[in-house]
Amino acid sequence: MKVRVNDVGPRDGLQSQGKTLSVDARAQLIEALVGAGLRNIEAGSFVSPKAVPQMAGTDELFSRLPASDKVRYAGLVPNMKGYQLATAAGAKVVNVVLSVTDTMNQKNIRMSLDETADVCKAIVERGHLEGVEVQAYLAVAFECPFEGLVDPEVVARYARLMHSAGAAKIIIADTIGAANPTQVRQVLDLVVPEVGADRLSCHFHDTRGMALANITVAVDRGVCEFDSSIGGLGGCPFSPGATGNVATEDVVLLLNSMGHDTGIDPLDLVPLVHLAEELTGVPLGGKSFRWLSQQRAKLLGEAGHVG
Amino acid sequence: MKVRVNDVGPRDGLQSQGKTLSVDARAQLIEALVGAGLRNIEAGSFVSPKAVPQMAGTDELFSRLPASDKVRYAGLVPNMKGYQLATAAGAKVVNVVLSVTDTMNQKNIRMSLDETADVCKAIVERGHLEGVEVQAYLAVAFECPFEGLVDPEVVARYARLMHSAGAAKIIIADTIGAANPTQVRQVLDLVVPEVGADRLSCHFHDTRGMALANITVAVDRGVCEFDSSIGGLGGCPFSPGATGNVATEDVVLLLNSMGHDTGIDPLDLVPLVHLAEELTGVPLGGKSFRWLSQQRAKLLGEAGHVG
Repeated sequence: MKVRVNDVGPRDGLQSQGKTLSVDARAQLIEALVGAGLRNIEAGSFVSPKAVPQMAGTDELFSRLPASDKVRYAGLVPNMKGYQLATAAGAKVVNVVLSVTDTMNQKNIRMSLDETADVCKAIVERGHLEGVEVQAYLAVAFECPFEGLVDPEVVARYARLMHSAGAAKIIIADTIGAANPTQVRQVLDLVVPEVGADRLSCHFHDTRGMALANITVAVDRGVCEFDSSIGGLGGCPFSPGATGNVATEDVVLLLNSMGHDTGIDPLDLVPLVHLAEELTGVPLGGKSFRWLSQQRAKLLGEAGHVG
Repeated sequence: MKVRVNDVGPRDGLQSQGKTLSVDARAQLIEALVGAGLRNIEAGSFVSPKAVPQMAGTDELFSRLPASDKVRYAGLVPNMKGYQLATAAGAKVVNVVLSVTDTMNQKNIRMSLDETADVCKAIVERGHLEGVEVQAYLAVAFECPFEGLVDPEVVARYARLMHSAGAAKIIIADTIGAANPTQVRQVLDLVVPEVGADRLSCHFHDTRGMALANITVAVDRGVCEFDSSIGGLGGCPFSPGATGNVATEDVVLLLNSMGHDTGIDPLDLVPLVHLAEELTGVPLGGKSFRWLSQQRAKLLGEAGHVG
């Protein structure tokens, strides 16, 4: 089946880097992703530049993105003000984040779970009225760093809430990379009947090496969109790669190999990993990166030896 | 369910290293694996020391292994002479390898597929008579480096042959790390009904990053034994980690997280990865290794910061 791969590197990846990239550099990375066939990209966030300097100038960035009817550029917003900034900058896809535990919301944005749910619901409803696709992330959907394991029923409840408010998509997010395939199945068995697999996406980090196993389980249940970041960009700048998003090249290779259609050739992603490395100064590359690099070199006739 | 993890590092891992370890060092690695709870270990092979100097002295190694009724030490043999050497050295579990394509057998051991099948069958039958467990590897079971994709019906045919000859176990081996979850399902859907999931094991390499996804699919079909190597030991010494076996720590963490019982604490594997690194001089560690190391350090109170 057709599966969409949504590269969140320009937002989720870059926001946690020690180095702040210029708007030019961020635009360059996004243009390269589009060039390699990515049609869904989380381009940036509309947040306070004091809180997240890496995302300053996202409005300017949006004005520079290669215009295309085929590419969906999303902007993440923390509140209604962010929604207004995003739509004023031309964003047609807006992401909101609803962490499904109270402590995570308190620690992260100093709001209760109920308050955050109200804010997200209001943005979703407004987007629905204004023709803006609002996608709702359900963060820490498997495990919360403060409250531990999350009850799948809680995830289903907020999925239902965002769905009935008119969310264009619900994204089940394993924010801290703690999910395993058994949990993914448990959550999807509850959520898929509520909102439909075609309205779902999953967001995994590869911290414990299980992201591709989780994606395998999810795609088998009909989920046809996944977040990833080029080269696994993301995570703590002090331990590169440790907690990054699952790498786009790994996800594309897995899905294509399984017979799904991502519309992307994973070999075309190799130079993008190098570009992201150059821009950020951080060593990158998913589990398949070495093999992909070897295959690409063979194809280009640059090298013959494969170990 | 109970799932056995079989560490093949001392054989499949070490045989491809540039550095040849002493019998002492090999015994040290095996003792450490036993100490961490491994109950299934491929300890070495009984092959020509000229062809594979890394495995010279495996008979001496077997005489030194910590005696235990609970640990199954396997020795790989290429032919009947190897079987005799292995059993003379006290091996109670013997592995044979049947590559399921003609070209792979010709290139690897200069025999036809039929000839190799005959040799393996004879060893399996003799073991059956003599009370020696003979395990049959079906190598290149998904893709052959010479003949390309392998027909699952061919794998099923040789699984049936080895099973009817009395093999203690059939191991479906993705020798070159090419399998994806769709293929694993196709092969198991044919092979499980033939021999029973309890007589099957799977052997994956993580070359393309899909080993844990493949294991997830296989364990869901009732396969309850998997090969792995500590730290991902194996592969080409010139590109460390590139084509190694899936890492034992990754497999144990995945299976335990999914609610299966391996009898092993993945945190206990962290010092073993360091030991294997010291012994081989090669950087090692699976996808979860950094996270496991952080968790272990936290537990030991050695460090507080987790990125």
